[in-house]
Amino acid sequence: MKATFVEHAHDGAARVGRVRTARGSFATPCFMPVGTRGAVRHLSAGDLEMLGAEVVLGNTYHLMLRPGAETVRALGGLHRFTDWGGHVLTDSGGYQIFSLEPKVDDEGAVFKSVYDGSKHRLTPEGAVDVQHALGSDIQMVLDVCPPADATADVLRAAVDRTALWAARGRERFLASGDDLVARHHQFGIVQGGTDHAMRRESTERILEVGFDGYAVGGLSVGETRDEMLPALHEATAMLPADQPRYFMGLGDPVGIVEVVALGVDMFDCVLPTRLARHGTLLTTDGRLNIRRAEYARDDNPIDEKLVGSPVARYSRGYLRHLLSVDEPTAGRLLTLHNLWWLLSFVEALRAAITAGQFAAFRAETHAIWG
Amino acid sequence: MKATFVEHAHDGAARVGRVRTARGSFATPCFMPVGTRGAVRHLSAGDLEMLGAEVVLGNTYHLMLRPGAETVRALGGLHRFTDWGGHVLTDSGGYQIFSLEPKVDDEGAVFKSVYDGSKHRLTPEGAVDVQHALGSDIQMVLDVCPPADATADVLRAAVDRTALWAARGRERFLASGDDLVARHHQFGIVQGGTDHAMRRESTERILEVGFDGYAVGGLSVGETRDEMLPALHEATAMLPADQPRYFMGLGDPVGIVEVVALGVDMFDCVLPTRLARHGTLLTTDGRLNIRRAEYARDDNPIDEKLVGSPVARYSRGYLRHLLSVDEPTAGRLLTLHNLWWLLSFVEALRAAITAGQFAAFRAETHAIWG
Repeated sequence: MKATFVEHAHDGAARVGRVRTARGSFATPCFMPVGTRGAVRHLSAGDLEMLGAEVVLGNTYHLMLRPGAETVRALGGLHRFTDWGGHVLTDSGGYQIFSLEPKVDDEGAVFKSVYDGSKHRLTPEGAVDVQHALGSDIQMVLDVCPPADATADVLRAAVDRTALWAARGRERFLASGDDLVARHHQFGIVQGGTDHAMRRESTERILEVGFDGYAVGGLSVGETRDEMLPALHEATAMLPADQPRYFMGLGDPVGIVEVVALGVDMFDCVLPTRLARHGTLLTTDGRLNIRRAEYARDDNPIDEKLVGSPVARYSRGYLRHLLSVDEPTAGRLLTLHNLWWLLSFVEALRAAITAGQFAAFRAETHAIWG
Repeated sequence: MKATFVEHAHDGAARVGRVRTARGSFATPCFMPVGTRGAVRHLSAGDLEMLGAEVVLGNTYHLMLRPGAETVRALGGLHRFTDWGGHVLTDSGGYQIFSLEPKVDDEGAVFKSVYDGSKHRLTPEGAVDVQHALGSDIQMVLDVCPPADATADVLRAAVDRTALWAARGRERFLASGDDLVARHHQFGIVQGGTDHAMRRESTERILEVGFDGYAVGGLSVGETRDEMLPALHEATAMLPADQPRYFMGLGDPVGIVEVVALGVDMFDCVLPTRLARHGTLLTTDGRLNIRRAEYARDDNPIDEKLVGSPVARYSRGYLRHLLSVDEPTAGRLLTLHNLWWLLSFVEALRAAITAGQFAAFRAETHAIWG
């Protein structure tokens, strides 16, 4: 069924509200942590509850290979499998598969498992079926995501095939039975690279198919921000105001304020969790590399200015030590910090929009992170 | 200062009570999780609080090399460094060093760091100083722990040198200043292998030096249980009833009930946490290897009979999946389970002794784990 966006406040095109779904609702703008293989690395559902995350991403590609979609279904779907009561959004699997140089034709893609080399096929229909088995609240339609340096021909083919697959994926979704259609949501994906005419065309064609929400894909894949944002704007300007808008694969503070400025509601990224595992931490003053020798005897918490981090009780010196001797506790505590920090950042962003102070928040974010 | 044992109940030689220290007290018999490098692998102080652990072990050898005793001192000692308000016990570093084939003479041991190959010296006096810097509540005197197959000559030399080092270590400890002596406790270590006469002699010589508590070392190093327990009995029969008795390096259920049957109060082991990381779990029905294919779609918690595990909300199928794809979340959740289980087991053991039902508890433990 259609997911709806209910606006509470806006400041320019930036908007605050709730996305309403069959499961319930969540506050937007919303950062969604990525739980690739059924868990955000180092964390469990209990941790995500503590952090106040509302939507978690699962990767269809990984889950269909391990433990397999039918095993997840047998264990009650991703929610019961991971014991997570919040929202689950799954990608279509396409993004990972295209990085493996699969054999692709109009029918779908054939790829090899990274786990055991076995051959698998992913089609627009199969992506729907797999995501139904996973039981995700929001599933993504299979699309073709070309690289940032794609030629005009490659981009044209991607836009065409994305539209073709969108129609087939939507058809399969709507034919999956009243119960599944009522409980799940399927989002369409707009492609078109940084070519404005292609973006508009792709948006139009995806809107024509009609989805429960809309994502903008194929951006934040290597192009500059000055190329990315105008292309995004071409799409968001056309997307319906009463449905959620999802920007795929973005999680840096400047990127977040800029896409929110164009009316984006949802975004996800592995960056904050990956950075954490390598010792790069998000703080009020910008990035902090905890591996630096200067922190060896530093008794302060990671972020001296923002209180409330679930790991504030542990000093920089202690965290640096754990990381330097490869204790897995380090990955966990630093991941908790970065996710907490980014979720707090987005909460402050929502408050700024509500208070009509988005411009100041945006300028400050650029000053620190630009 | 002297740590005292206050008895609440006993059943034969098995005893329940509290060990009173300068920091406070803890219930015994007591299983102490091992936090080798300043953290129990995968866990933080917050986790140990949740589990109800009361004493955590730190490894002097590892901590003196990384981050270094002076860094731990600068960050307020192990308690503040790890933000752990419970008791901290540190070993002397000797056990790890002797596994590295160091150059040893009566003065001490010279060994190479596993981290960077740099040379270090550990003496009975140095072990005291390092553990003061770490700020452990209970520090262990430097001893010589021979292997289970040591010749009579090697055993004799170990008993002699252990006595010599005990006297020197004790002297250094008592000379470390009124404040440190009042706030810290130093335990002596009895050696002697499985030779009864040597055990008695070593016990006598360590008692002659006089410590704040006593440990039995050099057992559970490869000898059979039938060799180990009588040798242990030679020592415990001589140790004062009003001071704590610590059996070093033991954490399997049968071993625990057997040493407790001889009046041991404290024990530690890496086994439950190491087993957890490899997928072997402790349950009411015995060991469970979560890697087995039969658990792939098993929706039950790890232990179906004992409620209260902090990871009971996660199914065997989910935990097996996380382990099989090497998600660090697996190591954490399985570690939490095993530590919770063993701490619960020891709690039940205390209750059995208090109720005068130790014999039945012991028989049941043998039936399941023997």
